[in-house]
Amino acid sequence: MHFNTQSLDALPKTTRVNLINSLTGFKSANLIGTRSNNGQENLSIVGSCFHLGADPALMGMIIRPHSVDRHSLEYLQETGYFTLNHVHEGIIGAAHQTSARYPREVSEFGATGLTPLYSHDFPAPFVAESRIRLGMKVIETQDLAVNGTVLVIAAIEHVLLAQGLMASDGYVDVEEAGTVALSGLDSYHLTRRVGRWRYAKPDLTPQKISD
Amino acid sequence: MHFNTQSLDALPKTTRVNLINSLTGFKSANLIGTRSNNGQENLSIVGSCFHLGADPALMGMIIRPHSVDRHSLEYLQETGYFTLNHVHEGIIGAAHQTSARYPREVSEFGATGLTPLYSHDFPAPFVAESRIRLGMKVIETQDLAVNGTVLVIAAIEHVLLAQGLMASDGYVDVEEAGTVALSGLDSYHLTRRVGRWRYAKPDLTPQKISD
Repeated sequence: MHFNTQSLDALPKTTRVNLINSLTGFKSANLIGTRSNNGQENLSIVGSCFHLGADPALMGMIIRPHSVDRHSLEYLQETGYFTLNHVHEGIIGAAHQTSARYPREVSEFGATGLTPLYSHDFPAPFVAESRIRLGMKVIETQDLAVNGTVLVIAAIEHVLLAQGLMASDGYVDVEEAGTVALSGLDSYHLTRRVGRWRYAKPDLTPQKISD
Repeated sequence: MHFNTQSLDALPKTTRVNLINSLTGFKSANLIGTRSNNGQENLSIVGSCFHLGADPALMGMIIRPHSVDRHSLEYLQETGYFTLNHVHEGIIGAAHQTSARYPREVSEFGATGLTPLYSHDFPAPFVAESRIRLGMKVIETQDLAVNGTVLVIAAIEHVLLAQGLMASDGYVDVEEAGTVALSGLDSYHLTRRVGRWRYAKPDLTPQKISD
């Protein structure tokens, strides 16, 4: 099957949205927790978080300012802080439900049954049910001229991990944590490790270091 | 377990790199195919592709300019074109091996046994073994001041899909395609769908539309 720019443009809008959202492959599934300066809490699922650097520890994410993420964006810009919380199998339904367009005065924590957790004097709420939680400080937000989405760049200030997830080399076993992968707009997946591969060098053949 | 900025900084470098690279959750696994103006082919794996928009169809990715991706970055900037090719279980070893630091004159296609495919008059090589392949046109590249990485924004000009992967609503079944998810720097995972969830609205309860 082949689509080019013209045949992509000719697709019905919903079809194109589903298609294009599938093409990156698997995406991370994170819940953004925020609290406005006047105390309103917000929670929304995001599939666009990406690694930006380990030293300093940085992540990026993309938010559409007119989407259901708009309150998250507003609050993280207002306060400078947010949390990221991995979605696992037990909270998929609640996590997906945060993508509904609730009015401003409704907290998606209360509406979906997830529990806000304040910890380590961090100003934004973590998700108590999550097993991998990050406290993030906004470094910059940038409006991308190409389509009006917003790039958020943030530093990792806190890492809260359930016990037993971190290997001796620092790798965090997100599969063991039950973290799900997202595809398209609405499909959630558990994983089965094929293996970890050793650091690649030109004169070595590819080899697993563990299953 | 808890890390803050100070205890993250105090970790040995390799430990911190493995830890921080794990924290986004699952990542897409794509091979970037490029060809320089003088005909040198390059192939490198990237875990940082993200959806940027469906109309127009845009994706972003992050490249570290001093990493093994440097030739990919140079060639896609020079020519304005590259391909993205999903990694599936059968080509994990070869795909991971493209992360070795080969000299410029070595094509990672030849070195890893993957096959360059030129199709639809697109100037960059696709990966013949891949089942989901995208022809990408560079819209802009931007040096991110925060850490010197490069944000590449590109338009999807061609979509090449193996038969039977696209549902009637446009969703592409990346699990059926065998596309793998990546975690950390070196862990590859197959997936098992938990379900697709219906479009969320405030007055509806979360519900699967399919398993």
